[in-house]
Amino acid sequence: MKIDGKATRTIWFADDGKTVEVIDQTKLPFALEILPLGTVEDAARAIETMVVRGAPLIGATAAYGMALAMAEDASDDALGAAYTRLMRTRPTAVNLRWALDEMMAALRNRPREDRVAAAYARAAEICDEDVEINSRIGRNGLEIIRQIAATKQPGEPVNVLTHCNAGWLATVDWGTATAPVYMAHDEGIPMHVWVDETRPRNQGAALTAYELGHHGVPHTVIPDNTGGHLMQHGQVDLVITGTDRTTATGDVCNKIGTYLKALAAADNDVPFYVTLPSPTIDFTLSDGVAEIPIEQRSGDEVSHMTGVTEAGDVVTVDIVAKGSPVANYAFDVTPGRLVTGLITEAGVCPATREGIAALFPDRAKGDDA
Amino acid sequence: MKIDGKATRTIWFADDGKTVEVIDQTKLPFALEILPLGTVEDAARAIETMVVRGAPLIGATAAYGMALAMAEDASDDALGAAYTRLMRTRPTAVNLRWALDEMMAALRNRPREDRVAAAYARAAEICDEDVEINSRIGRNGLEIIRQIAATKQPGEPVNVLTHCNAGWLATVDWGTATAPVYMAHDEGIPMHVWVDETRPRNQGAALTAYELGHHGVPHTVIPDNTGGHLMQHGQVDLVITGTDRTTATGDVCNKIGTYLKALAAADNDVPFYVTLPSPTIDFTLSDGVAEIPIEQRSGDEVSHMTGVTEAGDVVTVDIVAKGSPVANYAFDVTPGRLVTGLITEAGVCPATREGIAALFPDRAKGDDA
Repeated sequence: MKIDGKATRTIWFADDGKTVEVIDQTKLPFALEILPLGTVEDAARAIETMVVRGAPLIGATAAYGMALAMAEDASDDALGAAYTRLMRTRPTAVNLRWALDEMMAALRNRPREDRVAAAYARAAEICDEDVEINSRIGRNGLEIIRQIAATKQPGEPVNVLTHCNAGWLATVDWGTATAPVYMAHDEGIPMHVWVDETRPRNQGAALTAYELGHHGVPHTVIPDNTGGHLMQHGQVDLVITGTDRTTATGDVCNKIGTYLKALAAADNDVPFYVTLPSPTIDFTLSDGVAEIPIEQRSGDEVSHMTGVTEAGDVVTVDIVAKGSPVANYAFDVTPGRLVTGLITEAGVCPATREGIAALFPDRAKGDDA
Repeated sequence: MKIDGKATRTIWFADDGKTVEVIDQTKLPFALEILPLGTVEDAARAIETMVVRGAPLIGATAAYGMALAMAEDASDDALGAAYTRLMRTRPTAVNLRWALDEMMAALRNRPREDRVAAAYARAAEICDEDVEINSRIGRNGLEIIRQIAATKQPGEPVNVLTHCNAGWLATVDWGTATAPVYMAHDEGIPMHVWVDETRPRNQGAALTAYELGHHGVPHTVIPDNTGGHLMQHGQVDLVITGTDRTTATGDVCNKIGTYLKALAAADNDVPFYVTLPSPTIDFTLSDGVAEIPIEQRSGDEVSHMTGVTEAGDVVTVDIVAKGSPVANYAFDVTPGRLVTGLITEAGVCPATREGIAALFPDRAKGDDA
C-alpha cells in the first residue's frame, strides 16, 4: 500500500542485485527506516528482533534469507546451515517452516551454480503468492462491504472496527483484515475504521493507524474498552479481524481481546468477520478454547510503554504501580458461534465445521483431518 | 486502608486545627505526596486538577472547602461565594452538589460565631458517613465472597476481577468495589484480584494496584483485553465494579469497558456484581443506553501516557501514530440483564426495576420516580 503517496511493500529486492530491504517495524510509528539485509544472519536477526513481524512477512523474510545464504555460499552445508539458523528464529511459526521447506525443495536437488538465481526467484514468488492470496481475501471481503455500503446514504461511511494489526505491515502487501478496507477505499466507497489500540503492544495505535493514515483511509484510534459502547450506539457496521490459528470448527485464536469484541458484536447484531489465508486452518483442532495453548509473554510489555516525548525523543516508561505483578496473555480464542463468517482466498464460509468443510472438502477429509 | 502499614484516609483534618490534608492522586503511583489545603481556593483547585477524584472524595473535599472558607471569613457573602466557587469545579457531579447543599443547610441559619466549628464538624460527619456507607457495602459484599470461599479448597484464593478504581482512593476509606475485598482479606480469606489496567487513564494499573499492593492484597495487573480469556478458563470467580450512575431498572453507567467484561461474565456464567451507595441510583432513568449521555474527553488521554523512566523521571510520551485521530468515550452502559446483583449499603438486590423497588420502596415511589 502507499506510504507518502508511494506504493510500498514490506520487503523488496534492492537495486544492487543482492540485498533485500525491509521496513524496520520496531521504529514505527515514530520513524520510517529502511533496513538492508545483506546476509542470512541479517535476515535471521530481523525476524528475531521483530524488525519484521506477522506470519506471512516472517515467511517471506526467511525465504529471502535462504537466497542471501546462497549468494554467499551455494554449498549443501551452507544450505542446511541457513535452514537451521532461520528455523531457530521463531520455532513455532507455521508459516516460517512452510517457507523454509518451500525454499529447500526448490534448491536441494539443483546444481550449485543455479541455486542463487533459483533461490531469489522462489523467494520472489513466495512474496507474490502472499500478495495474491491477500488480494483474493480483499476481493471476497469487498463484496460484503459493498452490500453494506448499498444500504447507506450517499457519503455516509461504512464503519469497520478492527483489532490489532492484520494489515499490510504484517504481510507483504494488502494485509488480511485490511485488504477489503483498502479495496473499498480505493474504489471510492467512503470508509472509516475504528482502530483498537490493542494493548499491551499497541499494534493498532502504532501500526494499523500508521498504515491506514499513510494510505489515506479515514480512521480513529480508540482504547480497547470502547468498541462495545460504539456498537450499542450503531457506530460499527462490521468488525473485521485476522486470526493466528483457526480450528476445523471455526474457532479463531487471535490477539487477546478479540473475544470481547466478538461478544459485543453478537450482543448488538453487528457482523463479525475474520480474514485468513486458508493454510492457517488447523484441521486437527475442534475446540479452540480447550485445545489451543495461550502463550504468556513478558510482563514488561504491559508495564512498559514506548512513545515519543514532546522533544522528539523515543522513551520507554513504566506505567504500573511499583511492585505490582503483571500478567500478559498474548491471544484469546473466539468461539465460532460468535463469528459471522470466515473470509478466505477461496471464498467466504460460515465459521462451522460444515461451512469450512464445504469450502475445503479435500483438506477437511485429508491427512490432517 | 493501609499505606506502608499505617491506616490512612484520602482526606483528614491536620494537627494545626485548620488545614485539611489530602493525598495528591495526580502523583500516584509514582510518588506518595501529601498536599495541605489551607483555603477554599486550595480545595477548589484540588478538585479541578484531580488531586482528589472519585465522587465521594470530591464531595468530602468540597465540604472541607466550605469549612476552610468559614475559617477565613464567616460572613454570608463568604458562604455564598465559597458555595459558588466549589460548585463550579465539577458542575455535573451529583455528590459535589449534595455535599455543598448539606454544608449550606448546616451553616446558613447559624450565627457567624458558630459557623467555623459547625462547618468543620459537618465536614467531618460527611467523611464519616461515607466511610460508614462503604463499610456497609463491604459487609454486604463480604457475604457473597464468603459463600464462594466456602466452595474452594483450603488456601485456594477467591479470584475477583475489577475494572477502573472504585477503591478507597476514590472515597474517604474502604472504597465501594474494593470494600468486600478488603474485608475478606482482613478476615483471612485468601484473595486475588485481577486488576484491569483501565485505559485510557490507567486507574487500575496506577491506583487500584497501588492501594491493593500497599494494603497487602495479592493482585495482578492485566490489560483490559484479558478478562474474557481468564473467564473462559475458570480463573475469575466473580467480577465487582463500581458505577457512576444507575437507572431505576438496574442499568449501570461505569468506566468505559465495563460492558465488555459484563458480556464475558454472562458468557461464562461468572457472577457480575456492581457496588454503589444507593443515593447514586437515578430513579428518573429507565434505559441507560438510550438515556445516559456519554462524556467524550480529550484524545490526549488516549494518545499520551505518563510513566517513570529507568532513571526515575516521570515523563509523558505520545504512543499513537502521528496524525491519527483519537476518540475518548469516558463511560459505557452495562444493561441490568448482564448484572447479577447490586451491592448497596442497604443490602444486595437484583439489577431490575422490581429488585431495586423492593429494596428502596420509598424512593422508587417517591418524588424522583
